[in-house]
Amino acid sequence: MKFVRYQVSGEEKVGVLTQDGSAVLAQKALGMGRQFSNLLELIQTAAPEDLAAARRSVAAGKGAVPIESVKLLSPIDRPLHDVICVGVNYRDHLTETKEKFDTAFEEPAKPVYFGKRVLRTIGPEEAIESRPEIDPCLDYEVELGVIIGKTGVDIPKEKAEEYIFGYTIINDVSARTLQKQHVQWYRGKSMDTFTPMGPVIVTKDEIPFPITLNLCSRVNGETRQQSNTRYFITDIPTLIADVSRGMTLEAGDIIATGTPAGVGMAMDPPCYLRCGDVVECEIEKIGILRNTIK
Amino acid sequence: MKFVRYQVSGEEKVGVLTQDGSAVLAQKALGMGRQFSNLLELIQTAAPEDLAAARRSVAAGKGAVPIESVKLLSPIDRPLHDVICVGVNYRDHLTETKEKFDTAFEEPAKPVYFGKRVLRTIGPEEAIESRPEIDPCLDYEVELGVIIGKTGVDIPKEKAEEYIFGYTIINDVSARTLQKQHVQWYRGKSMDTFTPMGPVIVTKDEIPFPITLNLCSRVNGETRQQSNTRYFITDIPTLIADVSRGMTLEAGDIIATGTPAGVGMAMDPPCYLRCGDVVECEIEKIGILRNTIK
Repeated sequence: MKFVRYQVSGEEKVGVLTQDGSAVLAQKALGMGRQFSNLLELIQTAAPEDLAAARRSVAAGKGAVPIESVKLLSPIDRPLHDVICVGVNYRDHLTETKEKFDTAFEEPAKPVYFGKRVLRTIGPEEAIESRPEIDPCLDYEVELGVIIGKTGVDIPKEKAEEYIFGYTIINDVSARTLQKQHVQWYRGKSMDTFTPMGPVIVTKDEIPFPITLNLCSRVNGETRQQSNTRYFITDIPTLIADVSRGMTLEAGDIIATGTPAGVGMAMDPPCYLRCGDVVECEIEKIGILRNTIK
Repeated sequence: MKFVRYQVSGEEKVGVLTQDGSAVLAQKALGMGRQFSNLLELIQTAAPEDLAAARRSVAAGKGAVPIESVKLLSPIDRPLHDVICVGVNYRDHLTETKEKFDTAFEEPAKPVYFGKRVLRTIGPEEAIESRPEIDPCLDYEVELGVIIGKTGVDIPKEKAEEYIFGYTIINDVSARTLQKQHVQWYRGKSMDTFTPMGPVIVTKDEIPFPITLNLCSRVNGETRQQSNTRYFITDIPTLIADVSRGMTLEAGDIIATGTPAGVGMAMDPPCYLRCGDVVECEIEKIGILRNTIK
């Protein structure tokens, strides 16, 4: 199922996209045992029976409204915690990072994690606010986002899938000058509107392990990044097991799993995002997350 | 005023310590216009009149109960966001970091920020859980914590004080092996129970700018760190102005302002925390935050 948050007639709602993506079924048409005030609450508290009932309703397809009549919003507008980001998790991006961002960067023996502060994520079609006077080097990074569905610590690798609710697309927008000047990456990753997310959260049953999804990004229609999640340096079960050692993951937490080569800073010459540019992040089986630079 | 969260007869309450710290005035004795369900809500929504009324009540001192009859808790148990940490903000700690942690570390031109993930802070006397099988190199860092009182972005340096609610003590507990192995510092800073906080939040009126507070840490009674916040490389107004450029600070946010020299990793030989050790972090005008390693 593809869960969405959307706006219709000024109201914010939770629903599910139909299989072909042409229509939305509102929560009240899903036949779940109870109503959830938002998608985060659903992720945290929905029972398996609720999800099974919703799945049957979507298959029946009754009461769906055309996608054109609603405005899709970010699935989780106010995340519980900063996004847990995985750095340099594709070998080709590791190479370009070393060549173009930090020549002293050595290949890490362990996964690299950093926090991406976010008060409010932005949804599809929302504007990423450029602040060229703060940093003119604004960049995109398409990433598969993992949504944790069950709270846990010291999660064994072989049980990792149990702890996942589903998957989404995240654009890990980055201000490269800040990322570099402030030494740790946090500051350059954490500006307002730097976390576009969505358009949907696909439940894990639709994307079984091992995860081999094509992903790409485009700027004004030109393909910039193009890879497949099979090229992760550290795969998702290993990441979940590793990052949860002594560090509890909470239902609703978001893990951004890293980006492949092709970011703007690595182009020759570097090609950063400018006002009016349209960035699309696309991942197979999830959709397209499109945002414009304001 | 010294705001506290505490437990008495199994109930969690908000209150204020009397001036000499010997007793606690419960919220209902403070004469504020309304009751707040926790200290975070109070920080986010209390009006200046509420604080003024509370101040008068504390001065009168009626209805205070002896400190011995309550258990102090962390002032903010579930922070809104990961803690915004400032790295290497005392010159002597910068030197020891370069010598003992990372010889390639160059003196940064700008403040270094990183996120410290925290689901739940721990309060005074709560146990810091050591996980020697994950990382035997467990370390302490006494830090002045700034509690943001008003939401804002692009905050001018000269208005920084307006955006502060008060101050607390934070022990930025660190797993040094993880901090180093995972390249970015986030992972080694973010394990469960790694954010002891408290025992109080002192309102800003009691600690006017410029802030020159003695701070120290002790392990089993032996002084390890001893400095004064006047030795900050980047002072608090400059930090707030700098970190809020394009990145909204929210009322209730926590900034940990960095630690002085004397951490365990820099001793010769290094001296890490072990099961049973008692760590005390003390800051003038705030108090002592004591935790035991479990």
